Amino acid sequence: MLSDIEIAKQAKMLKISEIAKKLGITEEEYEPYGHYKAKLSESLYEKTKDKPDGKLILVTAINPTPAGEGKTTISVGLHEAMHVIGKNSILALREPSLGPVFGIKGGAAGGGYAQVVPMEDINLHFTGDMHAITAANNLLCALIDNSMQQGNPLHIDQRRIMFKRCLDMNDRALRDIIIGLGSKVNGIPREDSFQITVASEIMAILCLAADLEDLKKRIERILVAYTTDGKPVFAKDIGGCGAMVALLKDALKPNLVQTLENNPALIHGGPFANIAHGCNSVRATKLALKLADYTITEAGFGSDLGAEKFFDIKCRFAGLKPSCVVLVATIRALKYNGGVARADLTAENVPALEKGIVNLRTHIENMKKFGVPVVVAINRFASDTEAEIEVIKKTCAEMGVEVSLAEIFANGGKGGTDLAEKVVATIENNESNFKPLYDEKLPIKEKLGIIAKEIYRADGVIFTAQAEKALKEINELGYDKIPVCVAKTQYSLSDDPTKLGKPEGFEITVRDLRVSAGAGFVVAYTGDIMTMPGLPKVPAANNIDCDNKGNIYGLF
Amino acid sequence: MLSDIEIAKQAKMLKISEIAKKLGITEEEYEPYGHYKAKLSESLYEKTKDKPDGKLILVTAINPTPAGEGKTTISVGLHEAMHVIGKNSILALREPSLGPVFGIKGGAAGGGYAQVVPMEDINLHFTGDMHAITAANNLLCALIDNSMQQGNPLHIDQRRIMFKRCLDMNDRALRDIIIGLGSKVNGIPREDSFQITVASEIMAILCLAADLEDLKKRIERILVAYTTDGKPVFAKDIGGCGAMVALLKDALKPNLVQTLENNPALIHGGPFANIAHGCNSVRATKLALKLADYTITEAGFGSDLGAEKFFDIKCRFAGLKPSCVVLVATIRALKYNGGVARADLTAENVPALEKGIVNLRTHIENMKKFGVPVVVAINRFASDTEAEIEVIKKTCAEMGVEVSLAEIFANGGKGGTDLAEKVVATIENNESNFKPLYDEKLPIKEKLGIIAKEIYRADGVIFTAQAEKALKEINELGYDKIPVCVAKTQYSLSDDPTKLGKPEGFEITVRDLRVSAGAGFVVAYTGDIMTMPGLPKVPAANNIDCDNKGNIYGLF
Repeated sequence: MLSDIEIAKQAKMLKISEIAKKLGITEEEYEPYGHYKAKLSESLYEKTKDKPDGKLILVTAINPTPAGEGKTTISVGLHEAMHVIGKNSILALREPSLGPVFGIKGGAAGGGYAQVVPMEDINLHFTGDMHAITAANNLLCALIDNSMQQGNPLHIDQRRIMFKRCLDMNDRALRDIIIGLGSKVNGIPREDSFQITVASEIMAILCLAADLEDLKKRIERILVAYTTDGKPVFAKDIGGCGAMVALLKDALKPNLVQTLENNPALIHGGPFANIAHGCNSVRATKLALKLADYTITEAGFGSDLGAEKFFDIKCRFAGLKPSCVVLVATIRALKYNGGVARADLTAENVPALEKGIVNLRTHIENMKKFGVPVVVAINRFASDTEAEIEVIKKTCAEMGVEVSLAEIFANGGKGGTDLAEKVVATIENNESNFKPLYDEKLPIKEKLGIIAKEIYRADGVIFTAQAEKALKEINELGYDKIPVCVAKTQYSLSDDPTKLGKPEGFEITVRDLRVSAGAGFVVAYTGDIMTMPGLPKVPAANNIDCDNKGNIYGLF
Repeated sequence: MLSDIEIAKQAKMLKISEIAKKLGITEEEYEPYGHYKAKLSESLYEKTKDKPDGKLILVTAINPTPAGEGKTTISVGLHEAMHVIGKNSILALREPSLGPVFGIKGGAAGGGYAQVVPMEDINLHFTGDMHAITAANNLLCALIDNSMQQGNPLHIDQRRIMFKRCLDMNDRALRDIIIGLGSKVNGIPREDSFQITVASEIMAILCLAADLEDLKKRIERILVAYTTDGKPVFAKDIGGCGAMVALLKDALKPNLVQTLENNPALIHGGPFANIAHGCNSVRATKLALKLADYTITEAGFGSDLGAEKFFDIKCRFAGLKPSCVVLVATIRALKYNGGVARADLTAENVPALEKGIVNLRTHIENMKKFGVPVVVAINRFASDTEAEIEVIKKTCAEMGVEVSLAEIFANGGKGGTDLAEKVVATIENNESNFKPLYDEKLPIKEKLGIIAKEIYRADGVIFTAQAEKALKEINELGYDKIPVCVAKTQYSLSDDPTKLGKPEGFEITVRDLRVSAGAGFVVAYTGDIMTMPGLPKVPAANNIDCDNKGNIYGLF
C-alpha cells in the first residue's frame, strides 16, 4: 500500500471555492489561503445563526497504545461514509502541531485512504493559527518581563510567574532555563521554561472563545503571576491584550479544507488533552452544526481524558448536546491491554483479548454515564482473526451497543458504510440525554472525586502538600466553582501508565493544581506531565525533504 | 491629518485578482491569502524568464535620525507617481517584523498617503513568512541540542554553538540565557541567546536564494558550531535541512499586495541591515524586473549600510544592474546633522543646515562611486523654509544631481510626480555603469579597508585581538573570498552613533568577525550591535486594539 503522503498527493482535490459552494458558502464568506484552504468569515456566522443545529457525533477511543488506535482515521472515514450512504455530514477536527510532525509522529491528518488534504499544508504551517498563538503568547511574556524591567510597577514576584513562553517545536533544552542574564539591560534574571504552543493557555482560550469579544475577556483574565505580597496579576494588568487579540483575529476563524473524497472538513485549534481540554475550537464545532446535518468531531487521547473533557468542559461551556459517541478500538490494542507484548500483537490470542477487553467495557460504561448512546468502531487490521472478532461482538452485544468493523484505512468511505449506517440508526433510535458528569459548583475536591471514581475507577484521590497549598490559594481566589481539567497519563485509566486494562485498588495522586483563569478551568496535575516534548534519536525531521518544485516527501 | 491606519482603512482596495490581472498574472500563477494578498507561484518565473528586465531604482537615505527620513514613504510615493505620469512601475520592499510593531515603531508599510495595504495584515502576520523562518530556524536549533543529547556523535562543543534560536519579538530577557537545566532528560546545560527573527541567517539566506535548490544548499552550508577539537559543524551534518526547506517553501514565494492608489507591490523578506544585508528578497526583485518597466526597491538604514550592501552583496550575488539611486533626506535631519537638538528642528536654521548638509554630500559622493546616477528626494515637512530649500538646491546643483521636493506623505502619488519625472529623465539621460566597490577575492582586511575609506571616510580599520583570532580561523576555513557585511551603527558614517555630519579623523574598530556561510558573507562587528531589541517603557503593543468585528486600531 502507498504511504499516507503518496495517497494524499494523488488526491484529486477540488478548489476550495467548490467545497465552499457545496456548503452554500459564498465568496464573501470565506478567505482563501491558496487554492485549497480557506478561513471562514464572521459573516457566515451571522447568516447561519438561526438555522437549526445538526447532530453532533464525538469520536473517542479506549486507552491508546504507543501505536495509536486510528481515531482521526475513523473520524475522516465515517465522514466519507456518511456521504456514501447519502447523508450530509461535516468534520470538525484539531489541527496538528509542528512538534510531533518533526518528532516521532510524522503527520496528523488521518491515514491511508482516510485523510484530510492538502496534508502537507495542514501538517506544516496550515493557515498560520499555531504561529499566531505562539506570537500572542510570547508578546504577553515579553510584556511581563518588560514590566519588571521598567521599574516593576505591579510588584511582580519573579519567582512566581506562571505564564510561560512557547514554541511550536519539540525542544527539551528549553524546559528549564534561566533568562535575563548578562547585564542590567538584559532584564531581571529568573528561572523560566518554554512550553510547546499547543500547551499554551492561549490555545485553550482560542478553542473555547465564543467570539473576539469573549477572546479578549478571556485573555485579560489570564492569571500570569503573583505580586511579592501574594496578590494575583492578570494579563489585563500587564497590558497588550488588545494587541494579542489583533494577532489572533484570523486564528479565531475556522479553516475549511476537504477530505480525499472531496467532502468538507473544518480543522481548527488543537489544545493538549492533558493540561488543556483536547478538542477543536468551539467556533468550528458550532459553525459545523449549522452547515451540515451531522458533525463528526474528535477529542484527544482515550475517552477518560478526551471525552470527559469534551463533555465536562467544551460541551458545558458551549451548550453543545452530543447525539452519539463512536468509541474506537483495535483488537491489537485490546490484546496489549490484556498483557501481550507489542512484538506479539499480530498473533491470534483470544484469552489475552478476553482479558484486555475490560478496557473497552469500562470506556463504554463511562460514556453511558454522560447519557449519550455509544457505537463501537473496530479499526480493522489484517491480523484480526474471526475468533477475535467474535469476542468483540459478544461483548458489545452483552453491553447493548452496536459494533462495526471499519476498513477505512485501506478503503476510505466505502470501508465505513456499515459504521455510518449504525451511527445514523443509533441517533435515530436513541434519544441523547446528555448531561455533564458533575456540577461545576461543587468543591474542587468533590469534582475530582467524582471523575476519579466514575471515570478512572479509582478508590479515591490523594492530594500532596503542594496540591493542598495550591487548592487553598485557588479557593481563596474564588476559582473553585469552575470545571477541573485533569492532566494524567493517556496510557492508563489510572495515573500510572503501566497499569493497563481496568486497574483496580488504586488512588489518584494530585500533586499540584493551577488555574487557567482565561480558559476557565482548574488544571489538576497527576504524574509527570510534559508540556515541552523532546526529539527522539532519529527525529522525523531527518526524513522530510522538499524538491525544487516544492514537492514535500517524508511526511506520514 | 488622519493617522496612517485611518488612511489605510479608507483605502478602496481592489481584489488581489484585479492587481494580478494588471500584471498579466493568471489565477494559476498566484495563491491568494485572503482577498487582498497573494503569493506568486513558481510558474510565473517560468513564464516570464525570457522577458527583458525593467530598470531598477534603489531608494536609500542619508544617515537616519531617531525620527526616520521616510524612505518607505518616498519609495511608495515614487511608485504611485510613476503611474500618475503614465509609467509602468512596481515596488519591491521588505516585510515588517512584529518586534518593532509592538515596540517603538508601530507599523512599517509606508506612511500618510503613501502606504501599502492591507497595512494591518502586512504589519502583523502577513502571509506567514516570518513565522516560517522562525520555525525553520528553531527546528535547526532543536536538532543541534538533540544531537548533543543523543550521545553527541558530532562531538559538538557546547561552548561554541553559533546558531541561535529566534523569535519575531522584542524580548530582551532572552538575550543571555542558560538552557538545558533541571535534569539529564532536559538536554545539555549551556549558555545561549535568542535573536529577533529578522537577524537570523535563515532570513538572509531566504532573501539571497535563487530558488528552492539554492535555498537548500545555503541552509546545508550554515556554519552552526565547532567540534571539541575545533572543526566546523555545518547544518548538513546535523540533518533536517530538507524539513527546513519544506517549512520555507511558501515563504520563498514573493507576496503581492497593492498601494493606496491600487498599484502593485511585492513585499518580501526583511533581513536586518546590520548583521545582514537589509534588502528584500532577490526572488522578489528579479520577478519585479520582469513584471514592469521600473522596479523601485529600498535598502535598510542609510546608504553607508543599506546601499553599500545592496550593491556589494545583493546586486553582486544576483547579477542586478541598478539604473538609478534615489537618495532621501529631510531638511530636519540635515539640521540635526548640523548639531540642532531634536526639539528645535522645526525652527529655520540655515547655518546648521549648511553645516549638516555635508552628510548629504558624502552620501551623494558615495553613491557615485558605484557608477549609478543619483537623484535627491527631499521628503518635505511643513516647517521647511524657502531659505533652507535654497541651500539644498544649491548643493545638489553644485554636485550635478537632480533634486526634487516630494510631498508624498500628504498627497500620495501626485505629490511625487516631479520626483518621478526627474528619475525617469535621469535614467534616460545617464547610463548606469554599476560596479561593486571591491573585488570579493581580496583579503578580508583589504575589503574592509576599502569600505571604511571610501564609504565611512575613516582613516583606517583597527582589529581587536578577538577579531584577529576570528579572522585567522575564517581564513583557515577558506571563507576569505566572499563579501563582507559590516554591522555598524546606522546613526553615523563612523562606528560611533554620536558623530554626526561627516566625521573625520577616526578609525573603525572591528571587534569580531563571523561567517554567515549559508548567506555567503562574513559579518564584521563594530560597536554594540543588538540582535534582540527590547521593549520601551510604554510599548506600542499597549495602544493596539481589535474590536469584535476584527477592526484593528493603534497601528501607525
